Amino acid sequence: MNLTEQRCTACRPGAPRVSAAEIAELHPQIPAWQIIEVEGILRLERQFRLRDFREAIAFTVRVGEEAEAEGHHPALLTEYGTVKVSWWTHAIAGLHHNDFVMAAKTDAIAAQMGTV
Amino acid sequence: MNLTEQRCTACRPGAPRVSAAEIAELHPQIPAWQIIEVEGILRLERQFRLRDFREAIAFTVRVGEEAEAEGHHPALLTEYGTVKVSWWTHAIAGLHHNDFVMAAKTDAIAAQMGTV
Repeated sequence: MNLTEQRCTACRPGAPRVSAAEIAELHPQIPAWQIIEVEGILRLERQFRLRDFREAIAFTVRVGEEAEAEGHHPALLTEYGTVKVSWWTHAIAGLHHNDFVMAAKTDAIAAQMGTV
Repeated sequence: MNLTEQRCTACRPGAPRVSAAEIAELHPQIPAWQIIEVEGILRLERQFRLRDFREAIAFTVRVGEEAEAEGHHPALLTEYGTVKVSWWTHAIAGLHHNDFVMAAKTDAIAAQMGTV
């Protein structure tokens, strides 16, 4: 089952972070995302380009709706013509399988909306 | 006339940045905002606390509507329970009177919405 079709699972402190082997398997499914480290915590990050500010807000709202539906919440940096989306799991201070699921769902929203 | 009642004026490259004297006059009208420097460019920045993710998105949308109405656009970092708003003027790579007007309007939206 590809990532886009998966749902987030409940995630509590103590849940396992993704292993290096899992990252090697999952990252190719969301190749446009960078794995970056911010204050010692790994995140998935991708910047999307939109036509203008209004479209950027619309994209933020759509990703926000998906986040609410899955109970897993990103950081969204919305500016004129761009939205930078970051996924990580606060409860485990790192990357969980859920973050890869949400990144794939974010890509699907971008494809639907026709980001530039 | 206080800042909240003012409108943004057209701003082009070459328009004047606010002077130190103007900053000294305007900043006390938006005391919760910090003046920070990012990559050599001054910005106004304030973090707002909201109840949850849904409220953070709602606040982002409201500030976005005001930005569209005035034709002046911020950076909005939306996370669970917080929105960090940054105003500066790309065309002059610094702070314009407009940024103080928009910061005051952002405070007014926060007061209306009852941020925590």
